[in-house]
Amino acid sequence: MKPAERREPPSRERPDSRIRERPAAPPDARTLPARYYRDPDVFRRERNRIHRVLWNAVGPVSDIPAGPGGYRLAEVAGDSLILARGPDGVLRAFHNVCRHRGTRLLEESAGCLAGSVQCGYHAWTYGLDGRLRRAPHMERTPGFRADDWPLLPARCEVRDGIVWVRIAASGPGLAEQSGPAAERLRPYRMEELTAVHEERYDLAANWKLVVQNFSECLHCPVIHPQLQALSHYLTGDNFPMTAGAVGSTMDLAHGAETLSTDGRLVGTPLPGLDSPARRRIGYEILLPNLMLCLHPDYVVRCFLDALAADRTKIRCEWLFAPAALEQPDFEPARAVEFWDRTNRQDWRVSELAQAGIGSSAYRPGPYSHREDQLWAFDRWLLDRLGDT
Amino acid sequence: MKPAERREPPSRERPDSRIRERPAAPPDARTLPARYYRDPDVFRRERNRIHRVLWNAVGPVSDIPAGPGGYRLAEVAGDSLILARGPDGVLRAFHNVCRHRGTRLLEESAGCLAGSVQCGYHAWTYGLDGRLRRAPHMERTPGFRADDWPLLPARCEVRDGIVWVRIAASGPGLAEQSGPAAERLRPYRMEELTAVHEERYDLAANWKLVVQNFSECLHCPVIHPQLQALSHYLTGDNFPMTAGAVGSTMDLAHGAETLSTDGRLVGTPLPGLDSPARRRIGYEILLPNLMLCLHPDYVVRCFLDALAADRTKIRCEWLFAPAALEQPDFEPARAVEFWDRTNRQDWRVSELAQAGIGSSAYRPGPYSHREDQLWAFDRWLLDRLGDT
Amino acid sequence: MKPAERREPPSRERPDSRIRERPAAPPDARTLPARYYRDPDVFRRERNRIHRVLWNAVGPVSDIPAGPGGYRLAEVAGDSLILARGPDGVLRAFHNVCRHRGTRLLEESAGCLAGSVQCGYHAWTYGLDGRLRRAPHMERTPGFRADDWPLLPARCEVRDGIVWVRIAASGPGLAEQSGPAAERLRPYRMEELTAVHEERYDLAANWKLVVQNFSECLHCPVIHPQLQALSHYLTGDNFPMTAGAVGSTMDLAHGAETLSTDGRLVGTPLPGLDSPARRRIGYEILLPNLMLCLHPDYVVRCFLDALAADRTKIRCEWLFAPAALEQPDFEPARAVEFWDRTNRQDWRVSELAQAGIGSSAYRPGPYSHREDQLWAFDRWLLDRLGDT
Repeated sequence: MKPAERREPPSRERPDSRIRERPAAPPDARTLPARYYRDPDVFRRERNRIHRVLWNAVGPVSDIPAGPGGYRLAEVAGDSLILARGPDGVLRAFHNVCRHRGTRLLEESAGCLAGSVQCGYHAWTYGLDGRLRRAPHMERTPGFRADDWPLLPARCEVRDGIVWVRIAASGPGLAEQSGPAAERLRPYRMEELTAVHEERYDLAANWKLVVQNFSECLHCPVIHPQLQALSHYLTGDNFPMTAGAVGSTMDLAHGAETLSTDGRLVGTPLPGLDSPARRRIGYEILLPNLMLCLHPDYVVRCFLDALAADRTKIRCEWLFAPAALEQPDFEPARAVEFWDRTNRQDWRVSELAQAGIGSSAYRPGPYSHREDQLWAFDRWLLDRLGDT
Repeated sequence: MKPAERREPPSRERPDSRIRERPAAPPDARTLPARYYRDPDVFRRERNRIHRVLWNAVGPVSDIPAGPGGYRLAEVAGDSLILARGPDGVLRAFHNVCRHRGTRLLEESAGCLAGSVQCGYHAWTYGLDGRLRRAPHMERTPGFRADDWPLLPARCEVRDGIVWVRIAASGPGLAEQSGPAAERLRPYRMEELTAVHEERYDLAANWKLVVQNFSECLHCPVIHPQLQALSHYLTGDNFPMTAGAVGSTMDLAHGAETLSTDGRLVGTPLPGLDSPARRRIGYEILLPNLMLCLHPDYVVRCFLDALAADRTKIRCEWLFAPAALEQPDFEPARAVEFWDRTNRQDWRVSELAQAGIGSSAYRPGPYSHREDQLWAFDRWLLDRLGDT
Repeated sequence: MKPAERREPPSRERPDSRIRERPAAPPDARTLPARYYRDPDVFRRERNRIHRVLWNAVGPVSDIPAGPGGYRLAEVAGDSLILARGPDGVLRAFHNVCRHRGTRLLEESAGCLAGSVQCGYHAWTYGLDGRLRRAPHMERTPGFRADDWPLLPARCEVRDGIVWVRIAASGPGLAEQSGPAAERLRPYRMEELTAVHEERYDLAANWKLVVQNFSECLHCPVIHPQLQALSHYLTGDNFPMTAGAVGSTMDLAHGAETLSTDGRLVGTPLPGLDSPARRRIGYEILLPNLMLCLHPDYVVRCFLDALAADRTKIRCEWLFAPAALEQPDFEPARAVEFWDRTNRQDWRVSELAQAGIGSSAYRPGPYSHREDQLWAFDRWLLDRLGDT
């Protein structure tokens, strides 16, 4: 236990840009009741009303083997999906469930399909457009029409180099869901970047605690001294929260070029960025499950998978411009180590929050005026769950 | 993923006996809703309304040490039972629960009791007829009568070399439950056969998926090429389903003598079989938990233990006539390998079905006209659960 | 399985003091229904109506590092508590939960706090009196008053060398709860004794089965021959059960000096005991979670932690007078081995009771007239749960 005094931002860290005022949470804003973090029934409702209704970022499109028949399996809200390229090259998403007796169709996580998906049980065979092409012996069953039994589709789009999937048949379009956040991302041209590193994390914490942790930097001087030294937590802007995104920026400190172990650039500057973007870090959450850290020279991209009320898996990638990879002194470890350490600090406090909220003594606590994004996120959650 | 074409029965496998028509399931027959395979509450109801009310095949009678006092523990529907031979040589079944404070009486899975069962806690002592013989200090308790506190019995019978137990006090008799299936089994004289091999399997699948898999051979050309080569899936007969049994036959192909790795006999022909029985394989399910594969020269006998909605343990034995064991070239591995491989193929697709049915996208699918036995089994299930 | 006859007290064990009559349980006294030992919902109600409302013995005060700021974490009814000495030397108990966003404050099981407890997330800082001293950025939130957000306290007292905690704000005082049992303990002067050994056990049994096992010695001749040889199970007295304690005594047999592997004294006689106390063993349960075995020369002290309906952790200590430790021939193993063996015998039958009560065949059974303390405990339980 260190005394409180040591956790304050040291005086040499005074911000080199103005400290901005933000829209405040109301004075009586309180954190959520414990059940939202612990109750399996709330978690089920979240799956049905949030994760299955919104577009999920399921992973990089580069994961999917190229060419017709290239496919990869993905888990979205507990459902196994087949992401497969048709003969027309179009990527489609289908539930990995045979329409006959419910058998899981594919087990290998990725591969190439020879023009069709065949069930290993009774050889029902589906085209890569999902249509049922053969169903042995069903032809003799009166009234059976193959057209009635296609693979159940999910909506699928590719944007920013990411595969997006929406399970529900109805719901917002991807563009509508992303709102202005899509514009903010565009200059980073993620679809042109290359992942040079990946880490996977497994947290004993509710997915919302991860989102909430990502939505404020009041904790930065306390647990991220290495970040605070390069980018002061009171700088930057919050963007107004929309139906599908939470975004903000923080400015780089004088002398800092990016977030890295030594504060110097790691990649080549991303070509689409204007001057202001080269002096700040962008933070974006595309709800419900993508978190982005946008630097002048690279992007860290984290996919969340909410497995249970108290368990979340996270996959993070470090993306650089191809030009960076050709630099003889390219040293991505300076970015990887910086964010891997920062991530682990965040995951640890998220797990401590999960543990504390598990106590019978937990009561909703007061949000400060600078935790407005958390409060807005909580309102969004209650609204989606119909709990308002 | 292999193309569909390769999974069709090759033309050289044309059946050498006529393809029979069977009673069809209705055109709108559908598989069961997902809850029947996943919901712990449905599983509890199954235990109370099926597994505790019907006769269960709990294992071979040869498991129980010979002589008075010989006993073995068995689990039926989650309950521990003592199967013990009395001084009169009669086998009886009792719940392994002391009537005093509920203590489990015996822990060793098998052994020999010296004339009584004594609780290890307070020395309450029961005869092998279940009667309470001594209960120290209870004699001073007004109104206490030892006759009121016998071990709670379960019904117990021995037939076909198998111990059968019914937990419920009321319910059908064993003969009534088995119906005509008992007649079909009789010529195999299982009580005279010897188990030469045993395998135990642990499946992540609901017990009904195992029963349903055993109730049709439409999947045989797809996943059991070795079986399909010896016995064509469109041959044979289905017997009308009864309250306690599902049965069918399939014919041996021309040149095949039995089901084995090379199609030649493994054991000596079973003496009780008539000519037709020597040219076919019998398949019998004695509900809720015994599955039999009846060959001209041996029997494979599988005991199911439904442990949870998504977990089933299976114990399989390979039984031969004693005469076979005396043959110098007796090679049971040809039968063991054949069925162990076939079993594992079946268990694997059953687990894939469990996984697929776990998806939120699963919907009841259409049964073909040749899946009539599955449809009949589902009706039986719903009827027993009172869900019709 | 040994025949019943061998489990009877051998005739050479005739008690050397009179066999006393005790208040009997009513003739129709029955054990509790199974749900009280298995149902997670009953367990939750027990936590809320018993373990969180009564004083729990959480451990020896000597566990807590000396001096201001010395602290230890403890789990009571699933809640993490901080037991910390203030600058005034007073020991206080607080929930280990930050009032801001619920974060667990301390992770290390014990240590020394430098004058305050600081949350590792946003640096909220609490005094060792629980008052919120600093909450960065909250000063700007209208209406926020630090005095409204102290650490949530639990009641805390030290008595008999033990830390006692009550989570509920209202409830009986410790003295009121203990009742006459406190007087019975006093002569043993536990606060002056030294623990020379500790064992920790993890049981697959409900906590009440452990309490019930401790409340009668009818099982002693059956499972504890070593105890029965030194102290006859029919000797001694039961004290009337009170709202917070179950107590009894058993006499030492002629020639036995204490309970030990050889029946001879292990420690020096405890100085506060009168002559009768030197010829008997005291057994006390301070509900809900402390069990004591009081010998002429030492004390065994067991702290129970009910983790789930079917799981209980137990920590046992062997306490001796400091003078005993200075004896050149001090051999505590004779006491440790005696009780470790006896404990393991008791835990094993408690686990067998848990297993048996898990059977669908379990029915409440008859208490004998000498199981009056169990029956009284059951009435106490039902009364506290409001199930009468």
